[in-house]
Amino acid sequence: MIDTLIEKIKEKGNPTVAGLDPKLAYLPEEMKKKAFDQYGETFEGAANAIFEFNKELIDALYDIVPAVKPQSAYYEMYGIEGIKCLKKTIDYAKEKGMYVILDAKRGDIGATSEAYATAYLGNTEIGEKTEPAFDADCLTVNPYLGSDGVLPFVKMCESRNKGIFALVKTSNKSSGELQDLKSGGRYIYEVVADLVKEWGSTTIGMYGYSNVGAVVGATYPEQAEVLRKLMPHTYFLVPGYGAQGGGAKDVVPCFNNDGMGAIVNASRSIMCAYMKNGGSVGEAARQEAIRMRDDITSAI
Amino acid sequence: MIDTLIEKIKEKGNPTVAGLDPKLAYLPEEMKKKAFDQYGETFEGAANAIFEFNKELIDALYDIVPAVKPQSAYYEMYGIEGIKCLKKTIDYAKEKGMYVILDAKRGDIGATSEAYATAYLGNTEIGEKTEPAFDADCLTVNPYLGSDGVLPFVKMCESRNKGIFALVKTSNKSSGELQDLKSGGRYIYEVVADLVKEWGSTTIGMYGYSNVGAVVGATYPEQAEVLRKLMPHTYFLVPGYGAQGGGAKDVVPCFNNDGMGAIVNASRSIMCAYMKNGGSVGEAARQEAIRMRDDITSAI
Repeated sequence: MIDTLIEKIKEKGNPTVAGLDPKLAYLPEEMKKKAFDQYGETFEGAANAIFEFNKELIDALYDIVPAVKPQSAYYEMYGIEGIKCLKKTIDYAKEKGMYVILDAKRGDIGATSEAYATAYLGNTEIGEKTEPAFDADCLTVNPYLGSDGVLPFVKMCESRNKGIFALVKTSNKSSGELQDLKSGGRYIYEVVADLVKEWGSTTIGMYGYSNVGAVVGATYPEQAEVLRKLMPHTYFLVPGYGAQGGGAKDVVPCFNNDGMGAIVNASRSIMCAYMKNGGSVGEAARQEAIRMRDDITSAI
Repeated sequence: MIDTLIEKIKEKGNPTVAGLDPKLAYLPEEMKKKAFDQYGETFEGAANAIFEFNKELIDALYDIVPAVKPQSAYYEMYGIEGIKCLKKTIDYAKEKGMYVILDAKRGDIGATSEAYATAYLGNTEIGEKTEPAFDADCLTVNPYLGSDGVLPFVKMCESRNKGIFALVKTSNKSSGELQDLKSGGRYIYEVVADLVKEWGSTTIGMYGYSNVGAVVGATYPEQAEVLRKLMPHTYFLVPGYGAQGGGAKDVVPCFNNDGMGAIVNASRSIMCAYMKNGGSVGEAARQEAIRMRDDITSAI
């Protein structure tokens, strides 16, 4: 499935992904008002406003940005209606030809990881029938439980032509508390990198990259450089550019010399560009997405 | 919130929790048939069958078992309808006076963890109003991202009188790949234990335990003994008893000398007791829950 993502990146000449983390506070007042007038100040009202926001963003970005990354938490907080909106967002982005990376950081013991893999990447069995529940193209997963917690996702990638990104070195300030501990002369994030490499070794695609990617924060460029060498065939999903403080030079170490190997995420800076630069949500997001694309492609 | 759980454990004389991980394969054929006849072989049919199953279990257990632990993955795999069933299950168990530990192992960077904390333990803001989305009593969380990924949950525990259990040493076979690595002479699970202790230090309740608990698998009794000493004021949620292979003697090290400090989970052995011992789902589950209670209380 990584091949599909790489093709979309090449086609658009744009190694970035737009994060859809739609807090209500990010939405224009009139967009909220319209939904609240129709559905009340309810989960349904919030979810409808958020879907309108996402739709405007997707409509403005789909021809220049290869992928979206909805962050599941921001939908789950609006209950069932929020999760309906997540599903609608996944479906709409796919309909528009975008690659959908669902950022849900799932992970559990084997049998339970299998259920999560089924939920987000698979086809659920119901009696004699099967039906996909969320059907994203790709999912982020948490490696803390080790191989038997991740392999059910890898298996699903193989059987359903999907992808995952496992957390290796995250972009937040406290990421080092566990990830930067040293064991036997190696950092924990390096140990996880070795696992990621191994998990992906059976799924190398036509561009030389595996279906098992790694999350590597833009806020730690030195670590990214080491990780890039450790995992030459692993695609990196790179959060932390933009609002979290990472710049174009910080994401450069995440790329290989072939100009491939990483996809950089920005959420707030694209979703909220209209607040800073004026214009409509969609127009401002498109301008910011173009600026980000040019900023990154000129640096790598 | 840990006080509420402890009171329910004392009241029932039963330090166990019934896991609700309802795979369709665990349901009696006639229960599935009834729902499929009414709703078709659809997510709605599956979710209705599962709710009937959960309801029968809760009805049979609520007066003798203090808590239930729905595993979110098994609901998410049935899409929106599955998640509706999760919400109905949480509400029904609370209505029956049970303490609800939602096993969803969430965890992300700060702002996103805040959204997850709001979703499962909090009150979501919608315009001028607020409404709880899932409103469990307690949530399992993953510590791989460090303090800033966990503290939003801790804050929610304080403001909304809720609890969390952070993964420390999980029950699965591969848990040691990361958790048992040694850094500076200490195992990673010990480092996480120190963090858990620190996170909970501001929320010690009337029985001497904090609102921030730890997940410690019954399958690793030696590690549990060390962890029990490291975290005297931390409640342990103990998976791995029963179907995963842990016995009563294996969970003993998870308890303190006061007979408190741990709540032991069993899922499959209770849910599927009817398959092994005959009788109805509810009757068989109740007998197995009594057997498990007596097995554990006589060992500690």
